[in-house]
Amino acid sequence: MSESFKKTYPFNIISIKDLGRKEIESILDDASRIADGLYPDNALNGKILALLFFEPSTRTRMSFEAAMARLGGRSINLDSIEASSLAKGETLADTIRVVSGYADIIVLRHPSEGAARLASEFARVPVINAGDGAGQHPSQTLLDLYTIKQAMPIDKIDIGLLGDLRYGRTAHSLAYALSLFNARIHTLSPRGLELPDSILNELEENGTEVIPHEEINEVIPLLDVLYVTRLQRERFPDSASYVNIAKNFRITPEILESAKDHLILLHPLPRVDEIDPQVDELPCAKYFEQSKNGVPVRMAMLMEMFR
Amino acid sequence: MSESFKKTYPFNIISIKDLGRKEIESILDDASRIADGLYPDNALNGKILALLFFEPSTRTRMSFEAAMARLGGRSINLDSIEASSLAKGETLADTIRVVSGYADIIVLRHPSEGAARLASEFARVPVINAGDGAGQHPSQTLLDLYTIKQAMPIDKIDIGLLGDLRYGRTAHSLAYALSLFNARIHTLSPRGLELPDSILNELEENGTEVIPHEEINEVIPLLDVLYVTRLQRERFPDSASYVNIAKNFRITPEILESAKDHLILLHPLPRVDEIDPQVDELPCAKYFEQSKNGVPVRMAMLMEMFR
Amino acid sequence: MSESFKKTYPFNIISIKDLGRKEIESILDDASRIADGLYPDNALNGKILALLFFEPSTRTRMSFEAAMARLGGRSINLDSIEASSLAKGETLADTIRVVSGYADIIVLRHPSEGAARLASEFARVPVINAGDGAGQHPSQTLLDLYTIKQAMPIDKIDIGLLGDLRYGRTAHSLAYALSLFNARIHTLSPRGLELPDSILNELEENGTEVIPHEEINEVIPLLDVLYVTRLQRERFPDSASYVNIAKNFRITPEILESAKDHLILLHPLPRVDEIDPQVDELPCAKYFEQSKNGVPVRMAMLMEMFR
Repeated sequence: MSESFKKTYPFNIISIKDLGRKEIESILDDASRIADGLYPDNALNGKILALLFFEPSTRTRMSFEAAMARLGGRSINLDSIEASSLAKGETLADTIRVVSGYADIIVLRHPSEGAARLASEFARVPVINAGDGAGQHPSQTLLDLYTIKQAMPIDKIDIGLLGDLRYGRTAHSLAYALSLFNARIHTLSPRGLELPDSILNELEENGTEVIPHEEINEVIPLLDVLYVTRLQRERFPDSASYVNIAKNFRITPEILESAKDHLILLHPLPRVDEIDPQVDELPCAKYFEQSKNGVPVRMAMLMEMFR
Repeated sequence: MSESFKKTYPFNIISIKDLGRKEIESILDDASRIADGLYPDNALNGKILALLFFEPSTRTRMSFEAAMARLGGRSINLDSIEASSLAKGETLADTIRVVSGYADIIVLRHPSEGAARLASEFARVPVINAGDGAGQHPSQTLLDLYTIKQAMPIDKIDIGLLGDLRYGRTAHSLAYALSLFNARIHTLSPRGLELPDSILNELEENGTEVIPHEEINEVIPLLDVLYVTRLQRERFPDSASYVNIAKNFRITPEILESAKDHLILLHPLPRVDEIDPQVDELPCAKYFEQSKNGVPVRMAMLMEMFR
Repeated sequence: MSESFKKTYPFNIISIKDLGRKEIESILDDASRIADGLYPDNALNGKILALLFFEPSTRTRMSFEAAMARLGGRSINLDSIEASSLAKGETLADTIRVVSGYADIIVLRHPSEGAARLASEFARVPVINAGDGAGQHPSQTLLDLYTIKQAMPIDKIDIGLLGDLRYGRTAHSLAYALSLFNARIHTLSPRGLELPDSILNELEENGTEVIPHEEINEVIPLLDVLYVTRLQRERFPDSASYVNIAKNFRITPEILESAKDHLILLHPLPRVDEIDPQVDELPCAKYFEQSKNGVPVRMAMLMEMFR
């Protein structure tokens, strides 16, 4: 890792926007070496990670904990009930100051947008945002990028974002990050769940082409990467309209027949009905690999924070 | 451990029936050496165990976690609330595939019979069944056998199974395992809670003699081992009938007066009223020792899985 | 540490009263060396701490877990739901005997006064009381003393105890401990929440002067240490009377203007309205430092228990 990187690197990772393209590439390269086993397994010996999850996000929590363990470090956790009683008992600022006294780094998941930024102002140790409401979740974006990079150069890809693009935080952050890599973005979402204007404007400022589509069959053949997000039943007026719409957004082996050979299919998980289990066996299905990549990517982030 | 063992050993431990007598004896021998301190305390250094407990079983979970720690490994846990939200959010198959990406081995506790077998089909890492509904719980059976072996040769013992033998999963598995060791099995249970025919047939096929009894005083003098299981209040029509019947199944110092000198008394715990606390001080009371034996037995299992 | 200390040291730490002045000073000295980094980070390698928290006390739990991790040891935890199901399922005595088989030391938090003493009678490993109802919480008292000692010699200080002194367990234990160090104790509390007679008698027997005050402005200038405790809304007949009274007990920068230069301000946390956040920036505000001191103090306790 270059000296210039070390100097510009932020002490906290709150948003993917805190990182430039160069920083992102550096973390992905590190993750790649880690995935090949090229890391010291006692690098974080004696270090303590506090996982403060004020809403459940079991995959993120477990994979940060696994990442810390692989590097020889320890994690201390709140359980779900403790988290809710802590949140009732004192301000987030006080909790963060107290936990700063116990741990060397804090990973925070919180239901309120902006919570991680606030926490980083009160913390005396580095903070990683593991999702704050409709806000950011940078480690998810990094593992999404890493999974793309495993399959192809990230530059100038055609990516399809499918599903709930209004509330789907992971799609927003990924779209932003890909705008640094000159991607062309294709979108397909139910009416009312389109990409918000604020995101569109931001992508446009970065010079990124965003092409909305109406038909799944029209978009599939154009793509290098298809990123599917969860359609949440509670976003629809009733169960019937959910079922009616969801069936048009379901990925099946048939729908994928028109895809390019090298297409990869990603999903931040958990999935409900968005991807037919028969797709799991196809070579393009990379969502479980993507989830697994959370460990080396988070290991790379943790090593960077303790550098 | 012999070469032949290594070849036949299953990658998963789902049921005690996956193990032959030879395999069982090998694990018990390993556990015995471990209990004597003859094991490398960094054997599982860098390894990660995922404890997926979809119903509470605190003793089993804590003793697996202690076993992993004694060998230098790490554990990652779901908390109870996370487990229930995970179970609502996706299929067990998906959860198992995701967690396979984080951990080197999975210990699963699940309310549905057959869940562990299903999990082993989707996992990319070894799975140990830590209880699946009315199904199997092989580590419990191994620690029961280990505790017997500490006191006497397992072969050809007279064992009494007392209490709820219909729903008592631990009694079923132990009876099966002892049938490999030519035991004679004495049963005593409330009407309606007898050993099921399916289990009786299986024992008969293995050539095991099963002798039902009506009176506790009649059976005690015959036994080398008395295995008491919990009578659950909810199996009885009302509280009065529970109290009425439970008092006939309660082990007291008086009842044990007619026992052989070398009788040992086991219970999978927790106990409620089945054993008078005054019995705790008698030399035959081995149930806390039995619970403690969970650690070396599970250490032996974990070492075997990583061999 | 002197030989005489080693001989008199109790195997369990249930109450601060189990420790004499000499023992307390020895732990504080150890903690001080630990805080300077003078400890072997693998001192408790291979050791297992069981954290049995039957009521939430997240700070205490996390800082014991951090202390164990800093020394190379491992912790096994109950989650909140497991704890309540365990408590329903069996007696505390049985739980303690079982967990004694899994761990090398037990830290117990329990809602019932006397629970820790009972636990220590059934445990086969050392027990540390981490709070039992209205009873004791010795590690809190030790970290309070440690924080005082960082700022000044503990001997003969004038300390003010402010707030709910009737139910405030930490204030009771601290007052007792300071009576060993010839402190003069000033009290100020809402009517009905005064220091109980039993505590007053105990302090008097130890020759300690206790001076009740009526006005916060009258007491502040006299103090070397001000120890503020939480006023709990539920101790007051209604919300209005809470608000009315609490405002007279709120520490603000203005109120502190008459204080001695070297005054330090402590609070066991969490605080609600007792201390104005503007106070946080003043040099006298030591409550986050105090919370952080929980780690080296608990490390010193754990090392002592395993000595």
